[in-house]
Amino acid sequence: MDELLRQVTAEDLEAIEIGAAILGTGGGGNPYIGKLRCREELRKGHQINIIPLHELSDDAWVVSLGGIGAPVVGVEKIEQGEECLRALYALEKETGNKIDAVISSEIGGANAMEPMLTGAQAGIPVVDGDGMGRAFPEMQMCTWSIYGHKSTPSAMADEKGSIIIIRDTTSEIALERFARATVVEMGAAGAIALAPMRGSFVKRYAIPNTITQALQLGRSVLESQINNSDPINTVLEKEDGQLVMTGKIIDLERHLKGGFAVGHVNVEGFGDFRGKLGEIYLQNEFLVFKLDGEVRACVPDLIVVLEADTGLPITTEMLRYGQRVAVLALPCHDLLRSEEALEVIGPAAFGYPEITYTPLVRNSSREGN
Amino acid sequence: MDELLRQVTAEDLEAIEIGAAILGTGGGGNPYIGKLRCREELRKGHQINIIPLHELSDDAWVVSLGGIGAPVVGVEKIEQGEECLRALYALEKETGNKIDAVISSEIGGANAMEPMLTGAQAGIPVVDGDGMGRAFPEMQMCTWSIYGHKSTPSAMADEKGSIIIIRDTTSEIALERFARATVVEMGAAGAIALAPMRGSFVKRYAIPNTITQALQLGRSVLESQINNSDPINTVLEKEDGQLVMTGKIIDLERHLKGGFAVGHVNVEGFGDFRGKLGEIYLQNEFLVFKLDGEVRACVPDLIVVLEADTGLPITTEMLRYGQRVAVLALPCHDLLRSEEALEVIGPAAFGYPEITYTPLVRNSSREGN
Repeated sequence: MDELLRQVTAEDLEAIEIGAAILGTGGGGNPYIGKLRCREELRKGHQINIIPLHELSDDAWVVSLGGIGAPVVGVEKIEQGEECLRALYALEKETGNKIDAVISSEIGGANAMEPMLTGAQAGIPVVDGDGMGRAFPEMQMCTWSIYGHKSTPSAMADEKGSIIIIRDTTSEIALERFARATVVEMGAAGAIALAPMRGSFVKRYAIPNTITQALQLGRSVLESQINNSDPINTVLEKEDGQLVMTGKIIDLERHLKGGFAVGHVNVEGFGDFRGKLGEIYLQNEFLVFKLDGEVRACVPDLIVVLEADTGLPITTEMLRYGQRVAVLALPCHDLLRSEEALEVIGPAAFGYPEITYTPLVRNSSREGN
Repeated sequence: MDELLRQVTAEDLEAIEIGAAILGTGGGGNPYIGKLRCREELRKGHQINIIPLHELSDDAWVVSLGGIGAPVVGVEKIEQGEECLRALYALEKETGNKIDAVISSEIGGANAMEPMLTGAQAGIPVVDGDGMGRAFPEMQMCTWSIYGHKSTPSAMADEKGSIIIIRDTTSEIALERFARATVVEMGAAGAIALAPMRGSFVKRYAIPNTITQALQLGRSVLESQINNSDPINTVLEKEDGQLVMTGKIIDLERHLKGGFAVGHVNVEGFGDFRGKLGEIYLQNEFLVFKLDGEVRACVPDLIVVLEADTGLPITTEMLRYGQRVAVLALPCHDLLRSEEALEVIGPAAFGYPEITYTPLVRNSSREGN
């Protein structure tokens, strides 16, 4: 990891948007609206200050927050802009803790932007890291939950001023269920702030440096466009990933099931993959990739679909018949590969008990990512 | 109204159960389980103390509470017994107010018992009155909401220990929607305690003396069974009502729609009503009664269906083809007949805009009931 980010500029936001969308692995919601809000905060003279994990004090109170709801709704029902801030203040009132910093629950997609927006509004820094290192559809899939944080009380807010406190539940999954029911009544888009964590816990269990990672990833894609170099290779190098397919989408089946976009995509290979058939299975995010019937990548590793020509990420709702795509498999962080993590975010947790997770091998000798 | 009730005995509970079920107008849930819980509290040496409205001090804090959910589930998913108590304590924590008394949100059905149970557990009195004087399917149909009380913050609890605080919403209907979504996640049965009201407000807007009313109504039915007198006439006299039909159920259509039991019942007349056709339309409660196509009674007045022989009330889920029934129309309290009340609980509010509410005339000169 190169130099860590300290303060986010309007230009950085453009790069983070692209990087976050790539790390969204097809889901996570669109960071575009959040980027515009962040830019507006900067224009007002507010700052988006980033604090590296190692500088966080052990007894700091850190709140993980973000938007919750159906990504497809989030784009049309524009956020009022202070939902996360109100959720944060409601949580401060509920717990009596003064919050020192915020952190993203998931760096992939829209929730890369939300903590930066809230941090700028509240005048507190944003921790360089997140709870997923990618995007996942449900809250109990955060490393916070996996490694023992009790996320209640949580505070939820919507654009109309509604405030709901989920003070106690029997489990992290029960919290997810109550929050999901509440956000449906909020019109399928709202904000949630989870019970404060101590800095010591966050330092140990956050996926580290993921804002910097998104920034650098986005920058390298932008640069490759300017330099006319291959953006796909740029992403692969940057993320230590593998190209598992290039081809054309020849079949696409996608429907809404229980609030999630579920389905699969078939890709007919070209180039080095001529004559081969790729299949991607999805639930908001891309979960499993098979080549000629063999599993080549699966959760928690990242499956990313990029436009073959531009290297720009394609989210599940933007998939179209005939698109020419590159499918990339990127290794996830080791925190997502432990036994307790795989119970929650491994293939079986998503309904693929027949698939045994085999960690993607990293090409370089870097640890984690 | 004869002498007001001061303390509830185990024997009183039996009578209140019957009276509350009659006032439930087909809905409101079954008070049976709550009665057993109350009896158990008495057996433990706890008291169910009743305070008449006029003795309530103006600055007392009174909380309206009860069960929420699908009545049909409440019978099978037995409450743990302290749901309402936990909701009350969560509300005290949220508001910082020490609560002086509880009151029923609806006297009709199961929620006649819940505040008595909670009062016994918490050692505080139960106000003799309620927010409906009958049963209605939704919370904004309480006189509290109709006459301007803001019911947030509300606290909800379930049998597993979950606590949800609905701290702020844009309206009483929005509160109902959030609470309904939450209770579905609770397994369709939970408890809710609404924002504390001042004694002065409760004295003005509670339907008065309805625990005493349920007790006396139940007692008179029990006595008529012992004396072999006509229980139907007893109820009519007690409640100043009219017999609008006696007959046999010859058609019945009932289904679940949006969590409510919706449908209609056709009754073929016998006795004085031979040759006539009665139709009852229902949504959890009985809403509209037509005789040969003419509206004879509708909400907010009470439509009660009793077994012709025993005088015992029949709830919507107990309706069966071939049952011999008496249909009674009982006048509701004047607080339910104001313009602002009819907007929320008149026929149009239940989807019958073509029906103009004509208040049932009282036979006697009593005011209210």
